[in-house]
Amino acid sequence: MDKFKTYVDANRDRFIAELQDFCRQPSVAAQNIGIREMAQKVLARLQQLGANARLIELPGGALVVYGEIGSGKRTLMIYDHYDVQPPEPLELWETGPWDAAIRDGKLFARGVADNKGNLVCRIQAIEAYLAAVGALPVKIKFVVEGEEEIGSVHLPQFAKENRALLESADGCLWESGSKDINERPILGCGLKGIVYVELHAQGAIRDLHSSLAAIVPDPAWRLTWALSTLKYAHDHILIDDFMSHVRAPTPAEMDALKAIPYDEEKVKADYGIAAFICNLTGVELLKKYLYEPTCTICGLYSGYIGEGSKTVLPNHAFAKIDFRLVPNLTPDLVVDLLKKHLARRGFSDIEVKLTETGEEVARSPLDSPIVRAAIDAANAVYANAPIIYPTAAGSGPMYPLCQALGIPAVNAGCGWYDSRAHAPNENVRIEDYFEGMFFVRALIDRFAAM
Amino acid sequence: MDKFKTYVDANRDRFIAELQDFCRQPSVAAQNIGIREMAQKVLARLQQLGANARLIELPGGALVVYGEIGSGKRTLMIYDHYDVQPPEPLELWETGPWDAAIRDGKLFARGVADNKGNLVCRIQAIEAYLAAVGALPVKIKFVVEGEEEIGSVHLPQFAKENRALLESADGCLWESGSKDINERPILGCGLKGIVYVELHAQGAIRDLHSSLAAIVPDPAWRLTWALSTLKYAHDHILIDDFMSHVRAPTPAEMDALKAIPYDEEKVKADYGIAAFICNLTGVELLKKYLYEPTCTICGLYSGYIGEGSKTVLPNHAFAKIDFRLVPNLTPDLVVDLLKKHLARRGFSDIEVKLTETGEEVARSPLDSPIVRAAIDAANAVYANAPIIYPTAAGSGPMYPLCQALGIPAVNAGCGWYDSRAHAPNENVRIEDYFEGMFFVRALIDRFAAM
Repeated sequence: MDKFKTYVDANRDRFIAELQDFCRQPSVAAQNIGIREMAQKVLARLQQLGANARLIELPGGALVVYGEIGSGKRTLMIYDHYDVQPPEPLELWETGPWDAAIRDGKLFARGVADNKGNLVCRIQAIEAYLAAVGALPVKIKFVVEGEEEIGSVHLPQFAKENRALLESADGCLWESGSKDINERPILGCGLKGIVYVELHAQGAIRDLHSSLAAIVPDPAWRLTWALSTLKYAHDHILIDDFMSHVRAPTPAEMDALKAIPYDEEKVKADYGIAAFICNLTGVELLKKYLYEPTCTICGLYSGYIGEGSKTVLPNHAFAKIDFRLVPNLTPDLVVDLLKKHLARRGFSDIEVKLTETGEEVARSPLDSPIVRAAIDAANAVYANAPIIYPTAAGSGPMYPLCQALGIPAVNAGCGWYDSRAHAPNENVRIEDYFEGMFFVRALIDRFAAM
Repeated sequence: MDKFKTYVDANRDRFIAELQDFCRQPSVAAQNIGIREMAQKVLARLQQLGANARLIELPGGALVVYGEIGSGKRTLMIYDHYDVQPPEPLELWETGPWDAAIRDGKLFARGVADNKGNLVCRIQAIEAYLAAVGALPVKIKFVVEGEEEIGSVHLPQFAKENRALLESADGCLWESGSKDINERPILGCGLKGIVYVELHAQGAIRDLHSSLAAIVPDPAWRLTWALSTLKYAHDHILIDDFMSHVRAPTPAEMDALKAIPYDEEKVKADYGIAAFICNLTGVELLKKYLYEPTCTICGLYSGYIGEGSKTVLPNHAFAKIDFRLVPNLTPDLVVDLLKKHLARRGFSDIEVKLTETGEEVARSPLDSPIVRAAIDAANAVYANAPIIYPTAAGSGPMYPLCQALGIPAVNAGCGWYDSRAHAPNENVRIEDYFEGMFFVRALIDRFAAM
C-alpha cells in the first residue's frame, strides 16, 4: 500500500474540512473584503506546514504570502492566489457562496475552483509528502497573491523587487487547471494577455424627455456607432493596425493545435449554441480560440433598463471591453491603437478609460522540464492522457512572474469542465480534488528527477 | 374688481392644499400603484363640482373618469390623466415625490406638471367660474384616464365604444402645456405618434468566461451591429423604406415653423450641449424637431455594468428603442419595416418585442375654433404672446380620442420650461398655476363665442 495514499485517505475528512474553512472566509479583492484575513490564514497554514513564510506588503496594501520549503537541485515555484471573484449575482446560487456546502460529490463555493481548491490541495499534498514519503526532493517557493482577480495590479512590481528571490526557480506550477468535457486533464503552457477598457459617451447634462432626441445627441447612439467601427461581422477586429501586429502561428504551434482533441459537439450542446463563431471547426476553431486576439463587449449600459418602457433620452452610455492578447500585442499598444482609431473616425468625444494596467502574453516552451514533468505526472495519475494546450485562452500575471525571469510555467489543477469559475455555483468535485494531490506528488518527484 | 379673480384669491390656500392632496396620492400606472384610489378621488371632485360623472371600467381594470357639466351651443372636451410616471430615481429628489413640498414659489411632486396640476387647475377654474361668473356658456365633457403614462392602452377602445358620447365635442383642451425658456406660453396643435420596441439578442444559455468570446458569439456585438444598421452618423434613419413614408411638410407647415421663436442658445446652455444634432439651427432645426421621426436608444444593457472590470461573455443583450412618428408613419408600419430590415441583413436572430401598441400621429387645423379660442385666450391672459406649435414633439392618445372623431385639440397648461416632467424634482410654479385658471376661464368664454 502506497504510504502517500494511506495518509491522504486517513486525513480525508480533515482535508475537506480545511478546504471548507478556507472557502468560508470571503476574500473578494474587487470589493476589498477579507483580503488581510485570508492572507493571514494562508501564512499560518504555510508556517504550520513547516515553510519559512512571510507576508510581503506592497503599495496599496496588497499582500503577497511568500514561503519556502524543502531543498534539492531544482527549485519549483508554486503560484496561487487567495482572492476570489465577487459572488454576485447571489440569487443564482443554490447554496450560499460562502457556505462551502457539499452535495452530489461536489463542494460549492466562490473561489473553490479559482483558486482556493488548488492552493489548499497543493499545501495538503506537500503535508502528505512530508509525513508519508519523506523530505521534499526539490526546493519549493510559494507565491500566493491576493489581487489576481483584479488584474494582479502589484505583482509585476513584486516580481521586479524580489527578482533575486524568485529567478532561481527552474519551473512554475501555475494556478488553475481542469479536466475537459471528456474528462481529459488539460495542461496549459501559456496565457493570453489582457487589457480591459471602458468607453464612455456623454450627452446632455441630464436625462431628457425622448422627444428631444430629434435635436439633442443621444450618447447611446454615439457609443453604438463607435463600437461598430471596432469589430464587425465575421468577428473581424477592425481597429486600425491591430491585426497587423498579430504574428502568424509557427508550424510547431499549429502542430500543437492538431494534437488537441476538442469535442465541439459536446461543447456546443453545453453552451446551447448552434455553431461557433463563423461556423469554425477543427484546427481553424482552435487557432481562433488560442492564437487570435479578442475584442469582447463584457458590459453595455445606457438609460432605462427596467421593466416596460420609459421614453428617456439618456445622457450617458458606456461599454466595458476586454481584449485578450496574443503575440505581439501588448496592453499599451492596444490602448494606443484604439484611441487613434477612434480619433481618426471623429469619435474623440468617446472617452477611453483604463480600469487596470493589463497583462502581457506569456508562453512556455513545450519541451521545458516543468512541462515534461507535468505531462509525465498526469500520464501516471489520471485515467486519461493529458491534453497539452500551448496556451490557455485566459490571462494572468505569468509574464512578469515567470517569463520575464526566464521561468517556464505550466498550469494544471483540480477543476473540471463544469467548475463554473467566475459564475454562480462554482464547484470542485471531491474526487478531482484528491486526485489533484496525487498529481502534485508525482510532479514533485518527476521534476526533481528531470 | 373681477369677481373671478376675487374668488380665486379668496380660495388660494384651499386650492393649493387641494392640489397637494391630489399630488400626495401616488398613482403610478406602470407599477399599478394607487390607480383606483386616484380615480375615486377625481370622480368625487367632479361630482362635488356638480358634474354628472361616473367611472367607466375597461378591460384590464383600466378606469376612465367621465363627467359632463354645463350647457351651450358648443361642447368642449377636456382631456387629462390622473396617472403619473414612476418616481424613480428617488435619490435625486430634493423632497419626496409624494411630499408635494412648496419652496421658492414652486410645488414639487411627481405628476404635478404631468398632469395633476392641469387637471386640478381646470376643475378649480370651473368651480370659480360657476361661483363668481355664472352658468357655463359651453357644455364640458371631462375625459380623465389613468393609463396615459403607459401608452393609454385602453383609451382607443374607450373612444370607439363611447363614440356617441364623445363625437359631439367641437374641440378639446388637451392635457399638458408649458411656457418656453423665454416665458412665452406654448400652444400645441398636434402630437407625434410613437412606437416603443425592445431588441433582444441571445448568446449561449449562460454567461461564460470572456476568454471564450474568441469562439462563442457575443450577443452584445450582435445587438451593436444590428443597431448600427438602423441609424448612423448625421442621425439618418436607415431602416429600409422608412424615410420614404415621411411626407414633406407643406408650405403652410413650414410657415408655422418660421413663426416660432426658439431660443437656441439658451436651450443649448440649459442642456449643456455644444450644438444640436448636425449643427442644425433655425427653421431646419425646428423642422427636424417637429416634422421628422426619431429612432432613439432609450436603454441599452448587456453583461456586467458595475464598478471595475468583470471578464464575462454575456449571454443576453437588449436595447429599448422609441420611434416618434410623423405623417405618414404608423406604429404597425414601423414595426413591420424594422423586422423586414433586420431580416434582410441577416439579423433574424434579433427578437423585436413590442412593449405597447403605440400611438398614431395627430394634427389639428391651426384655424379650428378651439385653436383660435386658445390663441385669443392666451393673448388676453399672459404677458407674452403665445407660440403656436403645429405639433408638439411628444406623443399621446390624441388620434383615437380626438382626430378619429373629428375633434380638433389644443394643448395648453400651467407648466414652465423647467417643470421636469418624467424627471426628479418635477414642479409647477404657483403663479403659473393660478395664471392657468385665468386662461381656462378665458378659453371657455372665447370658445363659446366663436
